[in-house]
Amino acid sequence: MSPKITTELLRQLRQVMKSSRYVAEPIQAYIVPSGDAHQSEYIAPCDCRRAFISGFDGSAGTVIITEQKAAMWTDGRYFLQAAQQMDSNWTLMKMGLKDTPTQEDWLVSVLPEGSKVGVDPFIIPADQWKRMSKALKSAGHVLVPVKENLIDAIWMDRPQRPCKPLMTLDLSYTGIGWKEKIAALRAKMVERKVLWLVVTALDEVSWLFNLRGSDVEYNPVFFAYAVIGTDTIRLFISGDRTADPSTREHLLLDSALEAEFKIQVVPYESVLTELQAICVGLSPKEKVWLSDKASYALTEVIPKAHRYLTPYTPICIAKAVKNTAETEGMRRAHIKDAVALCELFNWLEKEVPKGSVTEVSAADKAEEFRSQQNGFVDLSFATISSTGPNGAIIHYKPVPETNRALSGNEIYLLDSGAQYKDGTTDVTRTMHFGTPSAYEKECFTYVLKGHIAVSAAIFPNGTKGHLLDSFARSALWDCGLDYLHGTGHGVGCFLNVHEGPCGISYKTFADEPLEAGMIVSDEPGYYEDESFGIRIENVVLVIPAKTKYNFSNRGSLTFEPLTLVPIQTKMISIPLLTHKECDWVNDYHRKCREVIGAELKSQGRHEALQWLIRETEPITKMH
Amino acid sequence: MSPKITTELLRQLRQVMKSSRYVAEPIQAYIVPSGDAHQSEYIAPCDCRRAFISGFDGSAGTVIITEQKAAMWTDGRYFLQAAQQMDSNWTLMKMGLKDTPTQEDWLVSVLPEGSKVGVDPFIIPADQWKRMSKALKSAGHVLVPVKENLIDAIWMDRPQRPCKPLMTLDLSYTGIGWKEKIAALRAKMVERKVLWLVVTALDEVSWLFNLRGSDVEYNPVFFAYAVIGTDTIRLFISGDRTADPSTREHLLLDSALEAEFKIQVVPYESVLTELQAICVGLSPKEKVWLSDKASYALTEVIPKAHRYLTPYTPICIAKAVKNTAETEGMRRAHIKDAVALCELFNWLEKEVPKGSVTEVSAADKAEEFRSQQNGFVDLSFATISSTGPNGAIIHYKPVPETNRALSGNEIYLLDSGAQYKDGTTDVTRTMHFGTPSAYEKECFTYVLKGHIAVSAAIFPNGTKGHLLDSFARSALWDCGLDYLHGTGHGVGCFLNVHEGPCGISYKTFADEPLEAGMIVSDEPGYYEDESFGIRIENVVLVIPAKTKYNFSNRGSLTFEPLTLVPIQTKMISIPLLTHKECDWVNDYHRKCREVIGAELKSQGRHEALQWLIRETEPITKMH
Repeated sequence: MSPKITTELLRQLRQVMKSSRYVAEPIQAYIVPSGDAHQSEYIAPCDCRRAFISGFDGSAGTVIITEQKAAMWTDGRYFLQAAQQMDSNWTLMKMGLKDTPTQEDWLVSVLPEGSKVGVDPFIIPADQWKRMSKALKSAGHVLVPVKENLIDAIWMDRPQRPCKPLMTLDLSYTGIGWKEKIAALRAKMVERKVLWLVVTALDEVSWLFNLRGSDVEYNPVFFAYAVIGTDTIRLFISGDRTADPSTREHLLLDSALEAEFKIQVVPYESVLTELQAICVGLSPKEKVWLSDKASYALTEVIPKAHRYLTPYTPICIAKAVKNTAETEGMRRAHIKDAVALCELFNWLEKEVPKGSVTEVSAADKAEEFRSQQNGFVDLSFATISSTGPNGAIIHYKPVPETNRALSGNEIYLLDSGAQYKDGTTDVTRTMHFGTPSAYEKECFTYVLKGHIAVSAAIFPNGTKGHLLDSFARSALWDCGLDYLHGTGHGVGCFLNVHEGPCGISYKTFADEPLEAGMIVSDEPGYYEDESFGIRIENVVLVIPAKTKYNFSNRGSLTFEPLTLVPIQTKMISIPLLTHKECDWVNDYHRKCREVIGAELKSQGRHEALQWLIRETEPITKMH
Repeated sequence: MSPKITTELLRQLRQVMKSSRYVAEPIQAYIVPSGDAHQSEYIAPCDCRRAFISGFDGSAGTVIITEQKAAMWTDGRYFLQAAQQMDSNWTLMKMGLKDTPTQEDWLVSVLPEGSKVGVDPFIIPADQWKRMSKALKSAGHVLVPVKENLIDAIWMDRPQRPCKPLMTLDLSYTGIGWKEKIAALRAKMVERKVLWLVVTALDEVSWLFNLRGSDVEYNPVFFAYAVIGTDTIRLFISGDRTADPSTREHLLLDSALEAEFKIQVVPYESVLTELQAICVGLSPKEKVWLSDKASYALTEVIPKAHRYLTPYTPICIAKAVKNTAETEGMRRAHIKDAVALCELFNWLEKEVPKGSVTEVSAADKAEEFRSQQNGFVDLSFATISSTGPNGAIIHYKPVPETNRALSGNEIYLLDSGAQYKDGTTDVTRTMHFGTPSAYEKECFTYVLKGHIAVSAAIFPNGTKGHLLDSFARSALWDCGLDYLHGTGHGVGCFLNVHEGPCGISYKTFADEPLEAGMIVSDEPGYYEDESFGIRIENVVLVIPAKTKYNFSNRGSLTFEPLTLVPIQTKMISIPLLTHKECDWVNDYHRKCREVIGAELKSQGRHEALQWLIRETEPITKMH
């Protein structure tokens, strides 16, 4: 992977930073956040502004360009990748390390007195604007909104914003119709005494209307906003997207309908002016509900006294708790996904020794097997197919320049998933096609112990996921090891593979308590730079746990793995497991064999079935 | 314990809330926070305003009185006690339970439109003022500072503010002289580019000047503020406290001295006006450093542009990391404390069967044995001596009305500690003087497993204590049990038994990362209302850990118990322990026997030594 040469681009950007065509007064720094106007994690090509200017194309990273310097902040998953993709114009700021300055502190340390720092107000979340603005102000600088995006100004071949057809989901997938969802939402609004709710996150709009799209790769969403009033519904969406008869019927656009469920379709671009108009009409105590992560631009048009900001919208929280139709869909999706992976691993076992399989071809094969499954729509993220040292690049994506052949001498890590109409999958398995070293097995086993510690954890109702993070690390910590990423993220149901408001991380973000029906990943790992990477990931469903006692009548929760793909026992150093951990592995493999075995059989995939049976043989721990 | 009758007091308070003698305009609600003007946890009798008005005298609780209602917020440690101490005028707000409103939400729900809410600006921390003020404002109300304290206005026999003699500590105790501490502090001030630092916490003033006092029960501190400039030192302190020759010498008040170390002694009451005068003289970019937990009154006199607020002052952080002289002092203190407890438990074993020992007499006896030790100054908090159902009241203090006889039929919980000139102790042991039930043993063993899980945890340098909290709960959670308090708090060195900035809690407060030299408590528990309480508490020192590997060269930490008092093995259900946990118990008891045994011998306490030897017999787990 050779770095992108950015000298000329930076020169141009620094020019527009001083040009009166774009800024009222010259700005001394320009911030390019990672997301789009909806604060999406995965973004459309037209929104990949940070990648365009810096070369770094990971999923998280913020860039700041001053008159002299250019710096990029990203987290532990991306340290290696970013270092490889950026040229010497750039300073890599490793977030989470003790000596790395925050963006604010860095700006204050490099800016000349009384500087102006610009940012696109649609791209920066309001909470970040607030923090940044405050820090700059207290150091004598000022954060200014720059209406025209300055990256777009120098980006000659910037792609169009996508506008692909919509897909409707019926009750068998969603469990709840969109009218019911709107009604439940309005009940929440009444409870909080708000009159309006602005929906800015793309997956929230998709979920609310039981629609899906394909505007953003891997995420079945479409560009839209929604504004829900107590008796109006406005859907801001471009083009002729609601022209399709099935969509019109789904949204009841041509039906006689109670007025409060009549959807007004409004052009996407007019959200700001429409919201402005709504705010003009507000009486003194009337409130507009919005996530504090919504864009500064949208937040700012709501006068402060009328804003009702929360870290999560009620849609985000409702969406996280899957109903029976959704959990059943997720189960079906994970069974199909496991069939594809059994086929893949069986194929790899045969092909790797021949020397012809590479990271890219293995990823392609995985996609091929997945695409054979009913209801397959897309991958859920770029497949991480990495062998040997590439495995240590936590969010590695194989490209021709780095593509490595799989062999019997290196660990292979595959983190992949798909979007099925039933649900979303995300699974990581770490395999060895030869004989792993004792050290590799030792590290794998610590990671497995951490995976089991989370998966088998029992905890009180109301517990936040971040309280479980250390369970995943304990075995690694005992030996002085660790990994620099969180342990789990929420997973959508045929929606974004990363979703809030729950997760399992040492970073104590404002996660909502776990409750039965939520779905998260459990994915501890261990990475040795230049050498190998290990990660074991299942998607798990939060379920009620039966316990001997029941303190304060609170009830307890635990996890049920939805992912049912064998964990390579060859990689386990059995003496390091406790008897309870051995039992967990054997129980898990028994379930894989039962459930996935039956599906492989019914799909007539006999060779993969044999592979599954071999790979799910019980392990035995001697006394 | 009968509740305090508060009807008349509330009537009087509601009168002064409308009286133009005290408030410019009538206020509709009055907030009485827990602390004093220094945001102390333990307060002098003259500052016990919340206890005076409500009857509830626990260490944490905030009261709000409106025209119609009176409510008191406290945490899980105090639910039972508060319910017993408050009469029917009061609503108990159980913090941490899902349905309990925050103070802000409650106020908004009960106040008439456009209300004024009053509070003493010296008593409310600035961060709380800010949050409360914002919430009230957004609901159309306003928070107003009421200069004269309204509780004081109706408190006829309010005690005087104490003004007791000071004690000086030499280098053998402190390890670092006060001039050196000031110099290090100024280096931190230069680093952060601040010109002034305001010290408001009493233990920070004590630590900085290597002085101790006895103005507040259990906490060896004295009423004072300090304002440190780059070349001036102002100590705000009342009365003739610096008249004593040894104090004058210690502070070098009469010595020829570099100007920057010359201490100006200023009256305690003038801190506000002096700070105002300092702020008038500030140039535009000059900053004053202050904790964001300092009082609103002091914070407010510093113009916003000149404020430099952090959750912790550099003194708080420096004080938390004990130097060698301090850790050695803490070790000595804990050895003496263990001697006293061995004597006590040996005495209890003999006396309890006679039926003559009560919670009060046991607590008195504990104090008697402690006071026999060299350098004993005071207890470090009110002894929690509780048997049977009283043990479930987490911060129970025995009083004649509740005093219960110890017996062979109930669990006895003793949480106690002392201030020695060398250091501060805090230890909890749970004992049975008869035959514990299988259920009691089961619960005790889960608590012990949690205690060991924290004490033996190995974790990377830079880990925050809150990431260890779940380790203490895991064994309880597995059976559906839990406890409603944090697992540990920082412990001062001959200072406050509770100190920041570190701790081990599920509440993710802004704790600083643990580092070698910090000292915290490890005290999981289990409480069954109306039945019994179990807690096992050691004070532990953070030390470097040797690990097999060393990821990212970060280094690892673990804990070393400073408390060396046997854990009653009779209470342990050995089959529930792992072999590793058994080894931990045996290793711990071996160390108790060695270290405390030697001290008991040298003090000629032969009977207690025999008790110690009996109580530290190894336990054996069968396969």
